[in-house]
Amino acid sequence: MPAVSFTGLETLPEVAAGDDLAALIAAAAAWEGYRWTDCGTGGAIVVVAQKIVSKSEGQVVDLRTVTPSAEAIAMAEELGRDARLVSVILGESRRVVRQQRGVLIVETHHGWACANAGVDQSNVPDEDSVTLLPRDPDASADKLRQGLLALGVPVAGVVISDTFGRPWRNGLANVAIGVAGIAPLEDYRGRRDRHGRLLKGTVIAVADELASAAELLMGKDAGIPVVIAAGLHLKNASGAALELIRPQAEDLFR
Amino acid sequence: MPAVSFTGLETLPEVAAGDDLAALIAAAAAWEGYRWTDCGTGGAIVVVAQKIVSKSEGQVVDLRTVTPSAEAIAMAEELGRDARLVSVILGESRRVVRQQRGVLIVETHHGWACANAGVDQSNVPDEDSVTLLPRDPDASADKLRQGLLALGVPVAGVVISDTFGRPWRNGLANVAIGVAGIAPLEDYRGRRDRHGRLLKGTVIAVADELASAAELLMGKDAGIPVVIAAGLHLKNASGAALELIRPQAEDLFR
Repeated sequence: MPAVSFTGLETLPEVAAGDDLAALIAAAAAWEGYRWTDCGTGGAIVVVAQKIVSKSEGQVVDLRTVTPSAEAIAMAEELGRDARLVSVILGESRRVVRQQRGVLIVETHHGWACANAGVDQSNVPDEDSVTLLPRDPDASADKLRQGLLALGVPVAGVVISDTFGRPWRNGLANVAIGVAGIAPLEDYRGRRDRHGRLLKGTVIAVADELASAAELLMGKDAGIPVVIAAGLHLKNASGAALELIRPQAEDLFR
Repeated sequence: MPAVSFTGLETLPEVAAGDDLAALIAAAAAWEGYRWTDCGTGGAIVVVAQKIVSKSEGQVVDLRTVTPSAEAIAMAEELGRDARLVSVILGESRRVVRQQRGVLIVETHHGWACANAGVDQSNVPDEDSVTLLPRDPDASADKLRQGLLALGVPVAGVVISDTFGRPWRNGLANVAIGVAGIAPLEDYRGRRDRHGRLLKGTVIAVADELASAAELLMGKDAGIPVVIAAGLHLKNASGAALELIRPQAEDLFR
């Protein structure tokens, strides 16, 4: 029977700026007795929560050091939020999509549409600190993948995940914001269904689906920032999560 | 180590109207040697592709029997599509969201925003036939769950999945359109992060994440319409996938 397993690592230490994530992940997996060899010929896909990537890269801002802009002060007043936080969010954004009811939805400089530009106060030791998204999550994923390979870990792909709201549907879900070693979009076009009919127009966002699957173990408070997927046979490719961003002109759903 | 496994069933026969899906799934699992007892105390979550649910319920339309409405003929002309198909799609819809480039995005009578109201020509034996979504996918999920329980299968939850496009992001992903036995939304509010800080506003669409995870095995042509998730400990609840529909007035992303 075809099967995929997702295993969470729960012994990573608190991550700090400059930490070698690949070494921390390999050490936690060894400590917990994870057998990389069981991943099979497809290799492992390592899904990592954005938060620890950001921390390892020093993408943390102490709000006490922030002098909010006039724009941020005005917007914070309307939103009923901390002007320093709003200032940081605006600094991470290229466009405000919506501001309402305490929520600021923006497009980040990368192009991700999300609440608060991914700036987050949870799971940070110091309550005046916030994490930012990695500057270049695809590069972060690639660096982590190279680091794991250098340690002898048979990693096929790395996915960096974050928790985003979605239009049309209630609840948040994890999506991919960084990818290395796999194609984030799997193209079923040209394949045939079980009745031999050509499949049209079906391109699946497998990197987002991997991130969502991993979230089922990560939760928000479980102390599981890394999930290893085994048993998948994805196309090896030098893909980038930026391929997942749909330009407005091509977006019929927006 | 916390782990979740997803196992695909690949010996289900072609499903026809009136077939007992619970019996077919239990038989395929037995034939393939799936051990339900390995699912642990959380029980199994059975994710089923919408297509076979629709077929078992006779939600199939022969386009040769369709006389398209005048509205459908006009719209089909603009879209460059089959007027009979457009007529069926409009019959399944309460509102057209967007029509462009051959694509019709609607809100179905259930309230799902998706392309073509879920009306689909793939994986249907007869090329003049299309499948519709189940009339009441939550009821379909509940019926399947009761049927599996009656056969002694330790099923905690059932998720009926379909492949939807999303705003903002390229590629399709599987989401839940029917749910039984589990809460589709897991509420993390009131829990604390690892630094003891109260988590605010985090409600996760676990049913969608389950559907997405299962898609990694289902693919589109793999002949795997059922995936069993084991190792999860979700809240047992009488949830409904309709809870996943976000009303327009509360939708800041739209």
